[in-house]
Amino acid sequence: MVILGVDPGSVRTGYGVIEVRHREYRLIEAGVVRVPPKAELSERLSAIHRGVSAIITRVVPDLLAVEDVFHAVNARTALILGHVRGVVLLAGAQAGLAVMAYAPATVKNEVTGNGRADKAQVAFMVNRLLKLPVTRKAGDATDALAVALCHAHLAGPRAGLPS
Amino acid sequence: MVILGVDPGSVRTGYGVIEVRHREYRLIEAGVVRVPPKAELSERLSAIHRGVSAIITRVVPDLLAVEDVFHAVNARTALILGHVRGVVLLAGAQAGLAVMAYAPATVKNEVTGNGRADKAQVAFMVNRLLKLPVTRKAGDATDALAVALCHAHLAGPRAGLPS
Repeated sequence: MVILGVDPGSVRTGYGVIEVRHREYRLIEAGVVRVPPKAELSERLSAIHRGVSAIITRVVPDLLAVEDVFHAVNARTALILGHVRGVVLLAGAQAGLAVMAYAPATVKNEVTGNGRADKAQVAFMVNRLLKLPVTRKAGDATDALAVALCHAHLAGPRAGLPS
Repeated sequence: MVILGVDPGSVRTGYGVIEVRHREYRLIEAGVVRVPPKAELSERLSAIHRGVSAIITRVVPDLLAVEDVFHAVNARTALILGHVRGVVLLAGAQAGLAVMAYAPATVKNEVTGNGRADKAQVAFMVNRLLKLPVTRKAGDATDALAVALCHAHLAGPRAGLPS
């Protein structure tokens, strides 16, 4: 099973693609969807939608996993984040992907065993689970990979079936 | 000039299309983009995006006008509203439309002369400006028509040019 994790952000949208087979996780690719920072909001949304759609076309995932966000610093931040998350979910739905959302605490708990883990701890465990050098620092794709791993873990044996 | 106004909502997304010619306004069509209410968020977003894209294809507007939302009751509401607004702006950007956003107080002020007008007053003036029966009550499309009229007014003589 191939899982695409996406971490929508108002400035940078991280993504990570992992393959799960026989309970083993493998990194396929990870990075950030780049957008022209000074463009109008609608143009930035268009770039994010295009970028995520291109990743889906390239890696043909079985599922899109994103963090579920109920809390935000304030309504203004939530609104902008919502715009980005909206076009990410849309890209998944348009490709016919199942979309799963997990609360941030669930993601942290499944990846590190601690629902309140900090970013460095999440990065450490993401690296371990994907057999990357554990000294790799947290980056734009860390949270995206974490949510993909969270789904892989929670989906259980089913996620290990050949897809 | 043909203006598409959209009022994104978490439950109902209203829209209104007006034509502006020689400072005269005419209603082309108005209504609500229907979505399956019990569907997953990503499916609802997909339906809204499809619906708005279909309207754009049908009426070929010159511009998309939406309300600019900086305030919301709370972060949760803002987040959901942001998702919907995001896919609406995306539909406009994908069609190559200019997208204009106006603050709610600006819309009310341009339509009624009172930035704090209530919904009934906005509906009354929308009906008058579009030469509809003034007894028509406020509906799902009222705010969408109001933001389209707001743009028509502020764009000034340019909006009256044959497009």
